[in-house]
Amino acid sequence: MGMNYERINEWILTEDCPDLSHLGKCEAVMAQGNGYLGLRAAMEERYVGETRNLLINGTFNQFDAEEVTELPNAADITAVELWIDGQRFHLAEGNWEEYRRELNIRTGELTRTVSWTAPNGKTVRLSFQRVVSLKRLHDIGLKITVEAKGDPIELKIRSGIDARVTNTGSQHFSEIEKRFYEKKYIQFVERTTQSNIDFVLNAVHQFARNGETAALQTDVNIERRYIFADYSIALKAGETFTIEKLVNVQTTRDFDAAGLTLSQLQEKSLEDLKLLEQTGYDALLEESAREWQEEVWDKIPVVIKGDKDSEFDLFALRYAQYQMRLFLPRHDNRMNIGAKGLSGEGYKGHCFWDTEIFLLPYYMFTDPQAARKLEEYRYLSLPGAHRKAQENGYQGAMFPWESAWLDDGETCPLYQGTDIITGKPIKVWSGIIEQHISADVAFGVWQYGVITGDEDFMEKYGYEIIMDTAIFWRSRLEDGQDGRYHINDVVGPDEYHEHVNDNAFTNYMAAWNLKKAAEYCEILKESKPELYARLDEKLNLKENCPKWKEGAEKLYLPQPTEEGILPMDDRFMKGQYIDLTKYKQQDFVAGIMKDYSLDQIQNIQVCKQADCLVLFYLMEEQFAPEVKKASWDYYVERTLHDSSLSLSTHSVQAADMGDDDMAYDLFRKAASIDLGPYMGSSNEGIHAASFGGVWQCVVYGFGGVRMLNGSLRINPRLPGNWSELTFTLYWKGEKLKVTVTKDHVDVQNLTGTKQVELSVNGEKRSV
Amino acid sequence: MGMNYERINEWILTEDCPDLSHLGKCEAVMAQGNGYLGLRAAMEERYVGETRNLLINGTFNQFDAEEVTELPNAADITAVELWIDGQRFHLAEGNWEEYRRELNIRTGELTRTVSWTAPNGKTVRLSFQRVVSLKRLHDIGLKITVEAKGDPIELKIRSGIDARVTNTGSQHFSEIEKRFYEKKYIQFVERTTQSNIDFVLNAVHQFARNGETAALQTDVNIERRYIFADYSIALKAGETFTIEKLVNVQTTRDFDAAGLTLSQLQEKSLEDLKLLEQTGYDALLEESAREWQEEVWDKIPVVIKGDKDSEFDLFALRYAQYQMRLFLPRHDNRMNIGAKGLSGEGYKGHCFWDTEIFLLPYYMFTDPQAARKLEEYRYLSLPGAHRKAQENGYQGAMFPWESAWLDDGETCPLYQGTDIITGKPIKVWSGIIEQHISADVAFGVWQYGVITGDEDFMEKYGYEIIMDTAIFWRSRLEDGQDGRYHINDVVGPDEYHEHVNDNAFTNYMAAWNLKKAAEYCEILKESKPELYARLDEKLNLKENCPKWKEGAEKLYLPQPTEEGILPMDDRFMKGQYIDLTKYKQQDFVAGIMKDYSLDQIQNIQVCKQADCLVLFYLMEEQFAPEVKKASWDYYVERTLHDSSLSLSTHSVQAADMGDDDMAYDLFRKAASIDLGPYMGSSNEGIHAASFGGVWQCVVYGFGGVRMLNGSLRINPRLPGNWSELTFTLYWKGEKLKVTVTKDHVDVQNLTGTKQVELSVNGEKRSV
Repeated sequence: MGMNYERINEWILTEDCPDLSHLGKCEAVMAQGNGYLGLRAAMEERYVGETRNLLINGTFNQFDAEEVTELPNAADITAVELWIDGQRFHLAEGNWEEYRRELNIRTGELTRTVSWTAPNGKTVRLSFQRVVSLKRLHDIGLKITVEAKGDPIELKIRSGIDARVTNTGSQHFSEIEKRFYEKKYIQFVERTTQSNIDFVLNAVHQFARNGETAALQTDVNIERRYIFADYSIALKAGETFTIEKLVNVQTTRDFDAAGLTLSQLQEKSLEDLKLLEQTGYDALLEESAREWQEEVWDKIPVVIKGDKDSEFDLFALRYAQYQMRLFLPRHDNRMNIGAKGLSGEGYKGHCFWDTEIFLLPYYMFTDPQAARKLEEYRYLSLPGAHRKAQENGYQGAMFPWESAWLDDGETCPLYQGTDIITGKPIKVWSGIIEQHISADVAFGVWQYGVITGDEDFMEKYGYEIIMDTAIFWRSRLEDGQDGRYHINDVVGPDEYHEHVNDNAFTNYMAAWNLKKAAEYCEILKESKPELYARLDEKLNLKENCPKWKEGAEKLYLPQPTEEGILPMDDRFMKGQYIDLTKYKQQDFVAGIMKDYSLDQIQNIQVCKQADCLVLFYLMEEQFAPEVKKASWDYYVERTLHDSSLSLSTHSVQAADMGDDDMAYDLFRKAASIDLGPYMGSSNEGIHAASFGGVWQCVVYGFGGVRMLNGSLRINPRLPGNWSELTFTLYWKGEKLKVTVTKDHVDVQNLTGTKQVELSVNGEKRSV
Repeated sequence: MGMNYERINEWILTEDCPDLSHLGKCEAVMAQGNGYLGLRAAMEERYVGETRNLLINGTFNQFDAEEVTELPNAADITAVELWIDGQRFHLAEGNWEEYRRELNIRTGELTRTVSWTAPNGKTVRLSFQRVVSLKRLHDIGLKITVEAKGDPIELKIRSGIDARVTNTGSQHFSEIEKRFYEKKYIQFVERTTQSNIDFVLNAVHQFARNGETAALQTDVNIERRYIFADYSIALKAGETFTIEKLVNVQTTRDFDAAGLTLSQLQEKSLEDLKLLEQTGYDALLEESAREWQEEVWDKIPVVIKGDKDSEFDLFALRYAQYQMRLFLPRHDNRMNIGAKGLSGEGYKGHCFWDTEIFLLPYYMFTDPQAARKLEEYRYLSLPGAHRKAQENGYQGAMFPWESAWLDDGETCPLYQGTDIITGKPIKVWSGIIEQHISADVAFGVWQYGVITGDEDFMEKYGYEIIMDTAIFWRSRLEDGQDGRYHINDVVGPDEYHEHVNDNAFTNYMAAWNLKKAAEYCEILKESKPELYARLDEKLNLKENCPKWKEGAEKLYLPQPTEEGILPMDDRFMKGQYIDLTKYKQQDFVAGIMKDYSLDQIQNIQVCKQADCLVLFYLMEEQFAPEVKKASWDYYVERTLHDSSLSLSTHSVQAADMGDDDMAYDLFRKAASIDLGPYMGSSNEGIHAASFGGVWQCVVYGFGGVRMLNGSLRINPRLPGNWSELTFTLYWKGEKLKVTVTKDHVDVQNLTGTKQVELSVNGEKRSV
């Protein structure tokens, strides 16, 4: 493991030894992006086992009818091959020293330095820099500096645009056009095969020798799916040579390409490239770093003070912020956040309940405009939710478990993993019966509305989503012989148990959704009759509202056992108890699937992830402390945390229950999902929701922040090794600064437009 | 360059130092196959820059409308990853010694041995063996032996079927099914996206420890486009462990799968795999080696005796035979021979005039049944030739310049290479105007008919092809103001000159085709009235025959200049003369395109390859020796041999002209196209036609064999360093053995069914 945290004080994540057997780790955790695009940190030279990803948010394509739509991997623009006197630069060959790869999360710059001695004995000092502009969403810069050490060298450079990349073998693009303009500007156009989105990529190289601009002869090459230039230059000992590769990527799906024909977009993007060429790498970096400072670090500052360990805690929190900005499509409400952000092909760029339950809290409290866009996406994707309901024999809005482009509907793949008994791929039921997502979306919308006070959003989109999902739930309820409604044959959050009846999380959330819809019906009828009339026309509120109420009242809600344990469904507690120690100690997830088939796991008391505990977390006031405690004890023992969503939920619960050590321990584990020593865990991309989870551990858990019954509550409990925690929150448009020390909670209203009422450790305050 | 020829006496091609910067060389020249499939010799472990190819002849697929159809790269079955105490085996890491990779062309086995010390200090002796069965066309075997040297080791093995491969980025397959049966048999089904051919691949592993069968626990894994098993075992120092990976591949395009549903094919292929498992690697190899011996080396023996240099000459000839069997679809007349055989993706598996002009001679003279299949293919692909004629406004059979599946018609790509002036891809005109192919096919058919005496073929297919192409040519002729017919706007064999008028090669061949068709018309009318009637009904011979005659008579045939030079077209000789020394000295082809655009080259006196000289070669009696000599002097100086087809033509001509040194020198160069020191030349695959060329250098050039006016002529001229040349020939069904020494030519009739009349050095013989 080459990860090293000695410079985290300087906001720097460091790898001090290349790990060529675990390339995915740094590729993912050192990825860069700006919400429009994500660029995985594959190295400039190529390695066996690498994954080179350039993902443009929202550009989904379906390879064939057997596959689900996914974010296609655009042509690679990061590869730059260097030869030193005929010897290709590659870390597995020759010898390297003084290696450092660093991601500066403050500026967003990725750098790598190494001294390399080729097998032919020539030594060079190499420095690689890379930035994805946070300011100019289409622009990427690379800079490479080569210093000839002891000897003169002949340096050969090959660089261009390489569209031979795929998504794990699936090719999403047709080649459309490739050309050199003016012998220097490289343009490549590719089109997605099914969604017909044109991608225009441009690149230009510029050179300097010992700091002076140098002109090199260009050997132009156009091959299949690959356009590149070869350059060569002789350097004297001690000379340095700098290569800047400036790149942009634009697509016909972009808002800022609206109305342009492909050839107009080609022209425009080429003009943009010429501007970028004039800007140059250094200015591009500076401008982008300023944007990071102003838009993230100055706007959403966090402080953790404490012992040495707390330095990692602060870094982990800031790293979570870095990631949550990297993959946030702040520019476009037609897209959302993939489960792996924009750092890998895992989960195909699809968004899940992760958005509302794990990520939305951060955005609602720190960047309400961005949060609104994420929920507007849900509104815009209602047509797909309606179609899914119809296809499944229901009414209203049945949101897809996995959501991609607006009208795609359900995009959950049908198979995943290996059944060790049958030798077949395992059928994934989530797309069909993991139905709590519809209530999760409604819950997110409601939370957003209350916390931001954004009534404009609620009127235009929010109320409708809550009511439309209520229509789904009402149509979903099944009559039981007990005179109650039931929801049978579902998957709850714990995906190790399929086809369960009366999953507690699902039923409580559905009941909440029905009740909330009915409640808003009555409120709007009174307070906003015009809006009510519009919604009534669309959703037949007059007839539906009473049915929602009745549904919520008659829906069976699982009740705690005598021991106070809430049964997560009607089967789990009857399952076989087994010793899970082996799987808990494994440094990879889902190890149990190597010993048991999913069919067998159905009858074993093992949870992939929090299920009832998420419910306690979302509806903390509905459950008695004893029930929470007894359930905690029961489920924690049986939970493998085989989902990255699990740890932070547990940490916040532990903090709520006053188990500070447990809360802190779980927080550190949550923070280590990607930053920790598990070299394989980030291969398919980082765990987007877990960064929301890290923030929740800190602000919800240790900071004790919660929205309860529409009010803001702050009950902080700092970990033992922290002396201070400072963070900011937007509450109904007012920006609050909260400073927590061991014996003091200070809340300031930085905006000061209107008074904010809140409760701090049970005591009312007004700021 | 790691190639080493010290064991060529033992029929062994050796690489004694791995060249990781030039992987394509050995991948291609050490490829294996059996005409049904070709397997590129990528190593078991993966490398940057490798190309892993498994190509099944005839299974063409078109990725999208912008691309032409090509042989798709089937799932990789050769990768086997090994870890020694956690360290992945890879030649760039750790240290290796005693490396040898050897292709035994006599047995068809590929082996590799190396002692490797991992970065962790553990040393293993590894041996890799691989065979593609020549007997069982679907079966492939791999065997790996690991010996723990100084220390005990933990060996981990990962192996399976990996369908993430593409053709330079284009994915031709949809995943259909993947499964483990009985926890050991791996089955993967993929389907071509456009041609809907199902590929079923099966694999099984078996193990032995110190020679004793060993059972290992299987960790089964199914991922996207990838199904594999993990195994691990602890070995004591000195122990050896053997892994056999037995594989088969079958497709729904196979003749022997005709009538089977996919699931029946899956079942059948799994049963076949179980048989293969029982056979085991060693017996599979032995059986296949026996087939090579009986079907190739015993049937088509060649002997060259002479000095040390002649050992390479004999090896090169046998290597050509190895290749010509490897890529020969002897089992199926619906496919032909790709320009790169089955050893790479270059030219997409398409066949060209290469078949008739360069390869057919070898097959006609040594394996007439196989030769017949190649020409049956042309007959079966007539529908595409008719369509091409119609699309271009002509009649009859206009054969595609590039031919793939039977009804594909023209499959020549529209663009290739880079125009250094415009920065755009260069338009390829061959598919539209390189029209001599239609006469080349007719010429091949005629040669086949005469040499083999296969009248059954001629009646069923041959005459019709010659007449159908004559219909094309007649419709193609253009009226000139000189009262002659002309063929304007074509590309001749020399592709550096496009849109030329009256290309000598094209016009002479077209005239021959018209004349030959008319001649056959008259012969058949007399001798085979029923056949004549059938063909007349189909091709309207009564009306066409006089038109063919008239066309042949009036077609303008370029005539030699006063200096005796035959002008290759109406423009070449007016072009600019430039010094080509630079390009002739380059160790790669087409270097001139780096300095001049193709537009500029049009007006330069430079030939990519033989043009007039091929004509002299095919129609040697039509041209006076002075014309041949003057043209030779003129064109050779201006020819870059940027096509692999060029050298052997020149060599045979040089031999004909009595320039023995030149002939030998050119033969050696032709033999070195793939076997020589040019490390990049075989990247996209070997040069199939050049192997036919090597055989022609020897048998036509030094052996002096020719069919002239329907008779066999043998005028040998051995190179100075050869003392004996022995080869066999089929002539009209009789197998002749020709032994040439410096002062003697012995011809034996091995079959002895009927007398064969021939001329040897101008003297008639009857054997």
